Amino acid sequence: MDLQNELMKRTTMFNTYWQRYLQLKKPTKLYEASRHLPFAGGKRIRPFLAMISCESVSGDAQKALPFAAGLELMHNFSLVHDDIMDHSLLRRKLPAVHVKFGEPTAILSGDLLFAKSFEAILDTSVDFSILMQLQQDFINCIIAICEGQELDIEFEQQNTITEEIYLDMISKKTGALFELSGKGGGLIGGGNPQEIAALKTYGMALGLAFQIWDDYLDMSSSTTTLGKDIGNDIRNGKKTLIAVHCLSHAAGKEKKLLDTIFGNRNASEHDVMKVYDLFRELGSVEYAQKRALHYIDQAKNSITVLKPSDAKELLYQLVDYVVQRDK
Amino acid sequence: MDLQNELMKRTTMFNTYWQRYLQLKKPTKLYEASRHLPFAGGKRIRPFLAMISCESVSGDAQKALPFAAGLELMHNFSLVHDDIMDHSLLRRKLPAVHVKFGEPTAILSGDLLFAKSFEAILDTSVDFSILMQLQQDFINCIIAICEGQELDIEFEQQNTITEEIYLDMISKKTGALFELSGKGGGLIGGGNPQEIAALKTYGMALGLAFQIWDDYLDMSSSTTTLGKDIGNDIRNGKKTLIAVHCLSHAAGKEKKLLDTIFGNRNASEHDVMKVYDLFRELGSVEYAQKRALHYIDQAKNSITVLKPSDAKELLYQLVDYVVQRDK
Repeated sequence: MDLQNELMKRTTMFNTYWQRYLQLKKPTKLYEASRHLPFAGGKRIRPFLAMISCESVSGDAQKALPFAAGLELMHNFSLVHDDIMDHSLLRRKLPAVHVKFGEPTAILSGDLLFAKSFEAILDTSVDFSILMQLQQDFINCIIAICEGQELDIEFEQQNTITEEIYLDMISKKTGALFELSGKGGGLIGGGNPQEIAALKTYGMALGLAFQIWDDYLDMSSSTTTLGKDIGNDIRNGKKTLIAVHCLSHAAGKEKKLLDTIFGNRNASEHDVMKVYDLFRELGSVEYAQKRALHYIDQAKNSITVLKPSDAKELLYQLVDYVVQRDK
Repeated sequence: MDLQNELMKRTTMFNTYWQRYLQLKKPTKLYEASRHLPFAGGKRIRPFLAMISCESVSGDAQKALPFAAGLELMHNFSLVHDDIMDHSLLRRKLPAVHVKFGEPTAILSGDLLFAKSFEAILDTSVDFSILMQLQQDFINCIIAICEGQELDIEFEQQNTITEEIYLDMISKKTGALFELSGKGGGLIGGGNPQEIAALKTYGMALGLAFQIWDDYLDMSSSTTTLGKDIGNDIRNGKKTLIAVHCLSHAAGKEKKLLDTIFGNRNASEHDVMKVYDLFRELGSVEYAQKRALHYIDQAKNSITVLKPSDAKELLYQLVDYVVQRDK
């Protein structure tokens, strides 16, 4: 099995399908805004995960398409709103929705994608009890994402975040949707309780690895000039696992350095660079890499109960793909 | 039947019930923000309409409570987001959510109320096919509300809005949720297709009357100093039926006056007063009152098919209540 090839096959199938939820209607500006991110690309990892999870329990990937559309619509909704909250200017190399269409239309287009995600879920052809379960899980997932984003924002003002608290935040903000992708695919595919539990655990572990690796990649760059985002993350006091580790291991002079610069919106480029260097000197970057690899292992170990299949093979490969991907 | 008394009875029942969707959890700030408007009062007209619609087809109002909660949660979600878009500072005599909790948490708390509204709908004890219908209607209603709000924002920049276009906008922004309240109550109560269609028409007509009357009340005040909101509506070029009527009937000097002042953010108090006076001189205020009364009649006429009952009597009374209420 070649993952890239299989990913592309299913992504093509998915992209053809989910366009029905993204038709251009009036008022044109609202619908154009809601289509901006969905049509700007994206790897469709969550839909892919839902589809191969469904296949891994002998289900038909086709049957998981409406659910997969719901996941991707929900993901895009959360990106649109998050970019407003975080004052992000770019997304997928394009202007963020609120930059291009203005904030009011951006808020509304996020709400519209949210509504459409429920519409998609409702199109899933499964028994009543399974549909009810999918919908309840879907609602709980959105609630978790909202809680996670709120915590992420609040953490910027707090320098005493423990690793446990940090993991709780990303398990909500990022992990929950991966978890739902795996579990939901398993439910739609008709998996037994053990298989569904395995796919759920796999999804969460994959999501955590994905998020931690993302932060690791940002910081492992060897260039001497920092990307604007990294500088901003340091100035905003953004809590990544690297920052959390560094803050809890710094003492004396190093602690003072962090107290002065980390989270200081007016910090100079030179000062920011000092924090960036400290992240490496205290082993925080390396630690994050190690933790991401731990979740990678956890994801792989969690699916041993699944019967051997091409889809299971793809689940294994997806884990490695997540930590190798270019940004 | 005394409407005030019956409204209060059902509102008490409703308020006790829907608190389950508004529990205070962590992160505290997010949940406090999402509880801010729901606990700030409100007449609960939509839940009341759903409950008496259910009763009017011999259903038990108790059965409509989860659906009614969904309606009120959705209404509150849209208020939270609208206030951000409209830069409103006050709501229900309290600071708007984004004023009190900041914009990021306000966006998230709206999203949370949105998710909770689906959770509530899912708790409705009805047959699968009815639940699917309720959910599809609910999604369509949210989409209509988003479209209506987008149009409302866009209209501020356009001075050529016809009455037809205006009515389309408020039928989405306000009418759709009233329509859903009536129709959904009828569905849950087990009404036949004619009864459900009647309650749907009633809801929409009531919603239109409600919205037009609201704008009429704002403008019919006889005080010589304008409320801040009215002044702002004129400065923002807010399209009410009164403004739409006036813009399409003004000619010559009057048209010039409107072109210069209506929608001019820097207009003086004196100039704004001239537009306010013009609204009366051209008969626009009176016209809006007449149109509201037209929808009042339409609402009443639409429910003749319902069998006589206390609930039907309340539906008649609710219509009159809507155009008499103090703001």
